[in-house]
Amino acid sequence: MQSSGQDRRIVIGVDLGGTNLRIAGITREGDVLHLRREETRADAGPKDLLERLVTGLLGVEEELTESGWEVLGASLGVPGVISRRRGVVESSPNLPGWKKIHLLRRLRRSVSLPLLLENDANAAVFGEYWAGAGKGKSTMVLLTLGTGVGGGIIIDGRLLRGADGMAGEIGHLTVEREGLPCPCGNRGCLERYASARGISGRYLDLCGGSAPGMPAEGSAEAAWVHSLAREGDRMALRAFREAGIYLGIAMAAIVNIVNPEAIIIGGGVLPAWDLFMPSAREEMMARAFQAPAESVELLPAALGDHAGFIGAAGLLWKEIPSAA
Amino acid sequence: MQSSGQDRRIVIGVDLGGTNLRIAGITREGDVLHLRREETRADAGPKDLLERLVTGLLGVEEELTESGWEVLGASLGVPGVISRRRGVVESSPNLPGWKKIHLLRRLRRSVSLPLLLENDANAAVFGEYWAGAGKGKSTMVLLTLGTGVGGGIIIDGRLLRGADGMAGEIGHLTVEREGLPCPCGNRGCLERYASARGISGRYLDLCGGSAPGMPAEGSAEAAWVHSLAREGDRMALRAFREAGIYLGIAMAAIVNIVNPEAIIIGGGVLPAWDLFMPSAREEMMARAFQAPAESVELLPAALGDHAGFIGAAGLLWKEIPSAA
Repeated sequence: MQSSGQDRRIVIGVDLGGTNLRIAGITREGDVLHLRREETRADAGPKDLLERLVTGLLGVEEELTESGWEVLGASLGVPGVISRRRGVVESSPNLPGWKKIHLLRRLRRSVSLPLLLENDANAAVFGEYWAGAGKGKSTMVLLTLGTGVGGGIIIDGRLLRGADGMAGEIGHLTVEREGLPCPCGNRGCLERYASARGISGRYLDLCGGSAPGMPAEGSAEAAWVHSLAREGDRMALRAFREAGIYLGIAMAAIVNIVNPEAIIIGGGVLPAWDLFMPSAREEMMARAFQAPAESVELLPAALGDHAGFIGAAGLLWKEIPSAA
Repeated sequence: MQSSGQDRRIVIGVDLGGTNLRIAGITREGDVLHLRREETRADAGPKDLLERLVTGLLGVEEELTESGWEVLGASLGVPGVISRRRGVVESSPNLPGWKKIHLLRRLRRSVSLPLLLENDANAAVFGEYWAGAGKGKSTMVLLTLGTGVGGGIIIDGRLLRGADGMAGEIGHLTVEREGLPCPCGNRGCLERYASARGISGRYLDLCGGSAPGMPAEGSAEAAWVHSLAREGDRMALRAFREAGIYLGIAMAAIVNIVNPEAIIIGGGVLPAWDLFMPSAREEMMARAFQAPAESVELLPAALGDHAGFIGAAGLLWKEIPSAA
């Protein structure tokens, strides 16, 4: 028997990322219980990953039930183009072979819980809003500076999805009209300047195209440039400062168009906050309208890698009436 | 007695613009009745304008009542910074002397109707959504290319106001990082390139700084450049084409960030649609994500000068339960 007044209900949140598969129980307060993490190993194909996803889901469900929790459902954040209503992963650049996978239908063969599917970037922004740095705000924007630049927007407590579920792609805002070409087809996207790859690429440029000792992969490169900046390397410091200027142009656009209470910055570049944020803030203040620029709070993300599965669970919690 | 099934209720909409004061009855279907228009003559000061506003409101109310309508309230669109809840016009660049005017409190001395106050750009976008080109859409954006560039955003049928009521300022999106200085303090704002003033200014530049016969005022200048373009003037054609390119950069940003069903273009530049829209569309398609760019409809505004007072009335209608 559960003690009176204490909610023993719980929701399972899943983050099916390109690198890691994370599954955990999430309370209505956003607390994380029985977190499981394993490598996604997407190369092994959809069938293998689906089997491990089912195993993980049932495993966490069993652990939670044994600990006296009532599991109400499971909610999954998945990268790529998602049909939420039909529960289908249409395509996913980070999950090779995932083309028109009827994910929820296939999970229902083995899992008897109510299920929800959401794009992982949307899940992450909802997580920061619901249980992270945006707690208590109603209109906010998340920018994730990682390998690329992700984004998401909350308006009056609701995810801005747009007509096709494609809203919030702030990483592909043009910040330099004739700028660097972006894989998305545009030129001068924010992502090309303020992502880990953008920053390390700019550092390489500033060094004349050669930086001995730089690791070969985007996010590791940026961490390496970050460590050089901490040692006082002027080119490394400049690379972060310039990234901040472009970030500031984008933040000014967000301030003038959305007028949010907060812009929250997350992702792998976050530890370099003090290296890019002064120039970003200065550029934003110079470009945006004064009143909304002065009122917007610039905050570091609070949930790190957990934002995706916490937010996925939060989206399901939102649909469940409070009190048992 | 009203005939059964026919709604004889009506709302008065007011557009208190810098040039014209418009007052009319608006049915729940968005039809306009008993429209009064007079010059604002804002130079005569707030007291004079307030008196004429009261006279106009009471006059339209009387006419509607005599025609058998039940007037439910009046809703005003006013340019500038508005405190909606307190009914105060904080400041208005287009209405000299309007500083912290308690507009609704002062109107209530003479007008016994329920009153609503809204920013005029917000009223206009709601008008196009409710009864104009955006009818039937739920997420849409309005861009008004006039003396300046105004904007407004509807998300799921609701005005996006933002934390301080300052959202939707798409005219001040940076489209050229080191571009022309804008009175707002930024550089390279859309407004500097795609407004009537921006287009005529660019034409003047292309002509080497001198264009004999050009009238002296912004919107008249643009109409004059428009007429030259119709005669085949290559510099005039180029000025509109270039404005379209910058408009397309901004539309791509809107598509990637908001993913609306429609972008609606209004304002005094609208008659030149075929001169700027091909380059705008091309630029948008080249820069935005394919799916949302292909799904967005680009539409000319339908209500013209009437959008403001129709939309103001629509915002009040939205708060009134349907059926008498």
